[in-house]
Amino acid sequence: MSRNKLPDFGNCPLPDALDTIGERWSFLILRGALFGMHHFEDFQSSLGIARNILSNRLSRLVERGILDRQVMPCDKRKVEYRLTEKGAALAPVMLALRQWADKWESSNPSSTVFADRRDRMPVREIVIHAHDGRALSPRDVMWIDRNCEGES
Amino acid sequence: MSRNKLPDFGNCPLPDALDTIGERWSFLILRGALFGMHHFEDFQSSLGIARNILSNRLSRLVERGILDRQVMPCDKRKVEYRLTEKGAALAPVMLALRQWADKWESSNPSSTVFADRRDRMPVREIVIHAHDGRALSPRDVMWIDRNCEGES
Repeated sequence: MSRNKLPDFGNCPLPDALDTIGERWSFLILRGALFGMHHFEDFQSSLGIARNILSNRLSRLVERGILDRQVMPCDKRKVEYRLTEKGAALAPVMLALRQWADKWESSNPSSTVFADRRDRMPVREIVIHAHDGRALSPRDVMWIDRNCEGES
Repeated sequence: MSRNKLPDFGNCPLPDALDTIGERWSFLILRGALFGMHHFEDFQSSLGIARNILSNRLSRLVERGILDRQVMPCDKRKVEYRLTEKGAALAPVMLALRQWADKWESSNPSSTVFADRRDRMPVREIVIHAHDGRALSPRDVMWIDRNCEGES
């Protein structure tokens, strides 16, 4: 690329997204929530995380609209954390990172995999598709700055 | 899920992947590298990051095999950072997070978008597909623990 033509990432929402979900514990809580965990104690024993840190991260995920905190009507001491639509929509991000890690960072296949709820069969590899449906390799894609394409 | 049946995330490679790429600046350097940036000065002016931090993060990305550091044969003072195959393979992760952020965290459409190198048309939305090719919504997918499926 030309040294003079740096992209305008000024309104790119990735830094905000990283604030929401880029932090290690938050991402691992999300992993558990996508597995179907709802309870503080389950997150705690699965992650071995200090209770005050877990409490802080759960609150932050609730504030950011990723998890919904529900007090159970049957027992007011019982609280459940459920993924919101916004939170559940992070499944492709989780899956893409997991598949990358399985391929590039891991020596043993993981025992946990993403599967179709209907038939419990593992899902396909996440692939980028062109507008006309062609599968693209990572080298086939590029960022473009629409402001430099004469479209703005 | 049953409270007694916590998933075995013991050999899940996500924590290591987060060490590699979860850190904010590392991820934003990757964003630039996927855009086609190769030079220290370009990353620096695009991110407005302190030089010592940028230097540290670039070294770490080289160590982790995401970027390749090449001294230019024509001018030994010139160094280029190029995505390795492993680094380029993070494009679907970047794209999935960006599309999520565009939808859920942003009020204005971003000027930079991922496009097909061939025709510069924006790529499709990242979708999870079942083994037989059906598009799955985030609510259709689940983690399964293969050790609890009688497969191990």
